[in-house]
Amino acid sequence: MADVPNGEQGCGSPLELFKNIAAQGELVRALKARNAAKNEIDSAVEMLLSLKMSYKAATGEDYKADYPPRDPAPGSDGGLDATEAGEDFVDPWTVQTSSAKGIDYDKLIVRFGSSKIDKELINRIERATGQRPHRFLRRGIFFSHRDMHQILDAYENKKPFYLYTGRGPSSEAMHVGHLIPFIFTKWLQDVFNVPLVIQMTDDEKYLWKDLTLDQAYGYAVENAKDIIACGFDIKKTFIFSDLDYMGMSPGFYKNVVKIQKHVTFNQVKGIFGFTDSDCIGKISFPAIQAAPSFSNSFPQIFQDRTDVQCLIPCAIDQDPYFRMTRDVAPRIGYPKPALLHSTFFPALQGAQTKMSASDPNSSIFLTDTAKQIKTKVNKHAFSGGRDTTEEHRQFGGNCDVDVSFMYLTFFLEDDDRLEQIRKDYTSGAMLTGELKKELIEVLQPLIAEHQARRKEVTDEIVKEFMTPRKLSYDFE
Amino acid sequence: MADVPNGEQGCGSPLELFKNIAAQGELVRALKARNAAKNEIDSAVEMLLSLKMSYKAATGEDYKADYPPRDPAPGSDGGLDATEAGEDFVDPWTVQTSSAKGIDYDKLIVRFGSSKIDKELINRIERATGQRPHRFLRRGIFFSHRDMHQILDAYENKKPFYLYTGRGPSSEAMHVGHLIPFIFTKWLQDVFNVPLVIQMTDDEKYLWKDLTLDQAYGYAVENAKDIIACGFDIKKTFIFSDLDYMGMSPGFYKNVVKIQKHVTFNQVKGIFGFTDSDCIGKISFPAIQAAPSFSNSFPQIFQDRTDVQCLIPCAIDQDPYFRMTRDVAPRIGYPKPALLHSTFFPALQGAQTKMSASDPNSSIFLTDTAKQIKTKVNKHAFSGGRDTTEEHRQFGGNCDVDVSFMYLTFFLEDDDRLEQIRKDYTSGAMLTGELKKELIEVLQPLIAEHQARRKEVTDEIVKEFMTPRKLSYDFE
Repeated sequence: MADVPNGEQGCGSPLELFKNIAAQGELVRALKARNAAKNEIDSAVEMLLSLKMSYKAATGEDYKADYPPRDPAPGSDGGLDATEAGEDFVDPWTVQTSSAKGIDYDKLIVRFGSSKIDKELINRIERATGQRPHRFLRRGIFFSHRDMHQILDAYENKKPFYLYTGRGPSSEAMHVGHLIPFIFTKWLQDVFNVPLVIQMTDDEKYLWKDLTLDQAYGYAVENAKDIIACGFDIKKTFIFSDLDYMGMSPGFYKNVVKIQKHVTFNQVKGIFGFTDSDCIGKISFPAIQAAPSFSNSFPQIFQDRTDVQCLIPCAIDQDPYFRMTRDVAPRIGYPKPALLHSTFFPALQGAQTKMSASDPNSSIFLTDTAKQIKTKVNKHAFSGGRDTTEEHRQFGGNCDVDVSFMYLTFFLEDDDRLEQIRKDYTSGAMLTGELKKELIEVLQPLIAEHQARRKEVTDEIVKEFMTPRKLSYDFE
Repeated sequence: MADVPNGEQGCGSPLELFKNIAAQGELVRALKARNAAKNEIDSAVEMLLSLKMSYKAATGEDYKADYPPRDPAPGSDGGLDATEAGEDFVDPWTVQTSSAKGIDYDKLIVRFGSSKIDKELINRIERATGQRPHRFLRRGIFFSHRDMHQILDAYENKKPFYLYTGRGPSSEAMHVGHLIPFIFTKWLQDVFNVPLVIQMTDDEKYLWKDLTLDQAYGYAVENAKDIIACGFDIKKTFIFSDLDYMGMSPGFYKNVVKIQKHVTFNQVKGIFGFTDSDCIGKISFPAIQAAPSFSNSFPQIFQDRTDVQCLIPCAIDQDPYFRMTRDVAPRIGYPKPALLHSTFFPALQGAQTKMSASDPNSSIFLTDTAKQIKTKVNKHAFSGGRDTTEEHRQFGGNCDVDVSFMYLTFFLEDDDRLEQIRKDYTSGAMLTGELKKELIEVLQPLIAEHQARRKEVTDEIVKEFMTPRKLSYDFE
């Protein structure tokens, strides 16, 4: 999976989107004309609507057949236009917003055509599992979904499902933000008691970055240690490097080719903004991220069963891959994967800036010492406080843009304490230094405990996690 | 590998070629600017020249920077234009000529930038191996090569090389023409005593045809039986289905990704004529046909050696894949594969028509009975004879367009007898019925013996040929 965000790649131009909408419209008409299956038509319509929304976001106008968009300014592209016009832009390589509060996630739900994780869904998860919902659910950090009700139907009817998430291992350095999907996935594994596959897209990182195959694979193994340190159950979890697993699995490549047969260059252009100058590895890669959504990619776990539905917890920027996957699934006879989408983890410098593995001050890394954590938070965490203590006491701070407060919403478990901090900081009763101290005291033990658990992860343990094998589960 | 010919896919338009030449020119300049390695620059220049030749063939004009080609007539493309203008067109999916003599192979050598297999090279092969050159060499059926002298240098210096050929299993039905590369490859294996890998591109056939994965794989196994019946040495030959081997080899996918990183969509558009409406599987497939050109795709045979050069005997229409491969090789640190190119095997109806697996009368199939062979040759083989016996006796027949005579050049071993037939038919001393009888008497035992050998090929033997394993060879 791609890092969030790194801005290597723009989206398709309005003209490209226009052409893709026209092509997708033709596909829908063709499917209807030959009385295709309902879910096939629905998928194509879903994709069409999503393209039209992207078009509106990029041009500010509704799509009108036969009226191509006006020429954009030279050198700009749709993604940048959108941002300049005050719209956020999100794809697997670029997350752009001009707001210090970060991306407008409600708008993103509309644009992507997903569903909001509302109170009713959270209550249903609580009823089904008998467990208090994870703080990421309670606080809207996992905020959007596709077909989660289907997964709960399956669970309540004792039908099997499995979890799939992943990571793009672009360097050895992982920061706390990278742990968000894994922390949540571990919780899901615990409360639903289901198998989990974790894809390390070392092939993707080799294709996109200036890395050798060995480097990319090395990062995959190093990152796997940090992932294992999140506490996954070795009996229920399979972690795999694409570079490795492709050559070890009788099922994986077959699904990759199936998907590749059902996705055109026009489609990946529209979805991912690829151009004619991109290498053919990038162009075909989306099929490799899609394939683990189908259970027979893992015959060692599911034998040749194709009907075990997949639930994918991931950051919302990965959704384009899985929109594509959901579009393809019914056409190759597989169930569509369900999704749970998280918000982005903000950089220390603020929600509108980019985190960067090459800038150690842009986030808290999993290798940071207690002292480094303290210094980074105190020196670099963007503050919503006032310029002087007097002003702060009088007018209060702004939690909506304060990065320390945002980090606390991710990592402080106690809801009451978080709410008290919010009130006190907003009223001015709590000063910025005090707020930062709260965060430091949460992060220091969290990172220290992670480091201690990571130290326990031997090469043998990594090897076992990464060996294709049966996993234990209770499906019938 | 693609069947020859089936005409599913046109070539790039003149405008696309124009753009690709411009892009390739930029690449050459960039390589020179950064003082790239000589072989890297040479490869890029070779590709540039080849594109320029394709451009001239398509437009009838030399490429001139900044002067894009004039618009072609609507609905036509470069390939068709070329043929209409009397030029042949050859790519992996289309072979077109308007001449009853077939493709002009001398022109093709110039256009593709390969080298003619001349008397000197044939003599050198004879000296090096101590064997009489195969009739396919003596008669110009293998007529073109790339770097064959390098292979002979290696052989004479006791350095290792290996053979690679393949087949696209699009149906169970194989005809005698499909055997040409295998008959010649077996001879090469015998005289050079080297290992051989044979790729069955069932993934390609799945992507291009209306087939399921299981059907494509089934055809691969059935076709493998016919290939094994050619007499390959089981100790020195590995036959693999892509769908199978990709999931069994630690080295194959890694090379595929390496190649995919170094080839852009622009390049495959220029070489193979892909369009934006093609599926991403087709677009990335050329890397899968390229990968077996590198020895570390077969760690079970060559361990992690990357320096064992590859020699590829194939029909000339497959050359675009290997031009691409040779362009990529130095950039990923591997030796370029050498090539031996064969002419096309003509359809019974004449060298300018298409053979088709769906038309049983277009060729002699490996399953034909003696009676079917006799009937087909007598009824369908295009004749270079005269309309009446009197005319024939007086003016003689035309061996250049006579399909029975062409087939004899492929299958009659005795040079003197062939020359006698040529003389007698040309003079009119031999009538068409007599010529056809000669061919029938060559084909009937050839096919019967093939069928007998194929019957001996058990499922166990196929399984052994298709199991990744060590091969015996004498390299140091």
